[in-house]
Amino acid sequence: MVKDNSASLKVAEIGEQGLLQRLHQFCPAEIIGDDAAAIPWKPERGENLVVTTDVLVDQVHFSDRTTSAQDAGWRAAAANLSDLAAMGAEPIGITVGLGLPGQTPVRWVEELYQGMVSCLNNYHTPILGGDVVRSEVITISITALGQGSPKHLMRRSTAQPGDAIVVTGPHGGSRAGLELLLNPELKSQLTPENYQVLVRSHQRPIPRLDILPILLSLTQRHGDIFRVSGMDSSDGLGDAVYQIATASGTGARIEADKIPILPALLDWVPRPKALEWALFGGEDFELVLCLPPAIARELVAKLGPMSAIIGTITEETGVCLAHSAGLNHLESLTGQKGFEHFHC
Amino acid sequence: MVKDNSASLKVAEIGEQGLLQRLHQFCPAEIIGDDAAAIPWKPERGENLVVTTDVLVDQVHFSDRTTSAQDAGWRAAAANLSDLAAMGAEPIGITVGLGLPGQTPVRWVEELYQGMVSCLNNYHTPILGGDVVRSEVITISITALGQGSPKHLMRRSTAQPGDAIVVTGPHGGSRAGLELLLNPELKSQLTPENYQVLVRSHQRPIPRLDILPILLSLTQRHGDIFRVSGMDSSDGLGDAVYQIATASGTGARIEADKIPILPALLDWVPRPKALEWALFGGEDFELVLCLPPAIARELVAKLGPMSAIIGTITEETGVCLAHSAGLNHLESLTGQKGFEHFHC
Repeated sequence: MVKDNSASLKVAEIGEQGLLQRLHQFCPAEIIGDDAAAIPWKPERGENLVVTTDVLVDQVHFSDRTTSAQDAGWRAAAANLSDLAAMGAEPIGITVGLGLPGQTPVRWVEELYQGMVSCLNNYHTPILGGDVVRSEVITISITALGQGSPKHLMRRSTAQPGDAIVVTGPHGGSRAGLELLLNPELKSQLTPENYQVLVRSHQRPIPRLDILPILLSLTQRHGDIFRVSGMDSSDGLGDAVYQIATASGTGARIEADKIPILPALLDWVPRPKALEWALFGGEDFELVLCLPPAIARELVAKLGPMSAIIGTITEETGVCLAHSAGLNHLESLTGQKGFEHFHC
Repeated sequence: MVKDNSASLKVAEIGEQGLLQRLHQFCPAEIIGDDAAAIPWKPERGENLVVTTDVLVDQVHFSDRTTSAQDAGWRAAAANLSDLAAMGAEPIGITVGLGLPGQTPVRWVEELYQGMVSCLNNYHTPILGGDVVRSEVITISITALGQGSPKHLMRRSTAQPGDAIVVTGPHGGSRAGLELLLNPELKSQLTPENYQVLVRSHQRPIPRLDILPILLSLTQRHGDIFRVSGMDSSDGLGDAVYQIATASGTGARIEADKIPILPALLDWVPRPKALEWALFGGEDFELVLCLPPAIARELVAKLGPMSAIIGTITEETGVCLAHSAGLNHLESLTGQKGFEHFHC
């Protein structure tokens, strides 16, 4: 029954991605490989049900050192809404499964919920219910439900050579904020305003549910068919471009100088460090979109200077990064620098 | 912001139910209090989206001592499908969030999925995706999605005095099976066949998704409006009756002699012990339904001898159990004997 020859193989040896690949055999092939699953829910009525699940574990995904209960709640809700945004879906609601040690303060749990609701209320999205059980470690499992027309689902696998690669906002800020929270002694290196900007990037990311309506209106104005490939940058901008290019059977070229980085970050660290955090830091929760260049230019004009066209989808496979020092291939970097929570 | 006066109050002090009650303030009032949430999903199209979440934690909800990975998978899937069945919904699919220690054998995870899929395949229900993360303790978080017409949702709160209380199958078997698995030395007290029947009741419960179509057909034949109140007996038959009666503002009278109990269980333990397990053991995953007596009788005739009308919904509040020794009031018992995973 089991395909593995080695009965003793441990999860840590194959990592999160390796395990997920093995588990794909248990899921229908057509719903794998995006930020969320899209189910042909009453297809005759032109609606998909879109569903995504995230599990967050204390000390792995959040920690009292860097994250208040309210911030943990906000981030958990935002991460799931971001997955819906990355699919081109609107949120319906979320469910929350909590595993809690008996010694968890009730106030902590209520503040966690306050944080979730603060984020969700901005998008008129309710908590639909959930479960609370005893566990040795705080575990937050969120499932977000959304809806979207199959006509404007944004998948990873549909990018085409010649597409412009757009990011909807700056990158690196979340990783910088985490660094500041982990190392309080660094605070004195920044102005109070810059410190706040970066820490807030980490604690209160904004899911880009505003992007889909803009894309729909731009596409309509052009009289085009909606064709946007994308995902969010939760696991890093570099990883997002790599995943899209791989899923689409294409390559990509990123212009390092085009990647938008917050002035607050460039005021603090040298550009190469900022660029590393922008590409591999993760958790900025912006969208990385591949679309026809004409619409891409209008999208960026509409979104403002912190969005940008950062590169192009290429026919030749492989992802490369062009910068002043020449060309780097990202292919080998992403696997190591992506978020692999099992490798630790 | 927080309503609690005592900042030091711990989750263990108020229990799972106490915590859930406090968390209700963060959810829309209209979707609280059933086995699953029903969302007015495109109400103009006559469909509800029904969603339910369960979190299972190693050593709390399952254990290698009693449960193989495949059985843990089956039970986790069955428990969620049972919640959908209890709402009068048909399954669409489930998502699976896993927290796993790095030392978990990959084979264990694959066998867990095999168990889930074995159960789900009987109902043509796919795994829609999920998440896998590192955790110190194995945690399985399942969200099941279903659909159902608002016309035949089965809520807890709609039972009426005079309704018959039906159970769709025998009770106590799951608790007996658990006892046998926890105490292997007891095995010699039973015939091999009886042992298998009871252990299987625990390891492979059957979600009663077959009940809704039968109810719909019986209601239609009577030319009646569908009016069935119900929930599943996952937290115990006694608790289910108590929850329905309380939510409906009614009482209930249960006839102890009418509660169906497997012959295999009565062959092994005295009737009072079997009755205790039937009422308070939990995890039998049958449906407890309150409905007009005429339809109830036809339902039981259709389902066969292991289903029964076990009592009546009463105008007078309070739940009482009638048996040869007289009347017991269940009200005070259920709170103590229900599944309160935080009280330990």
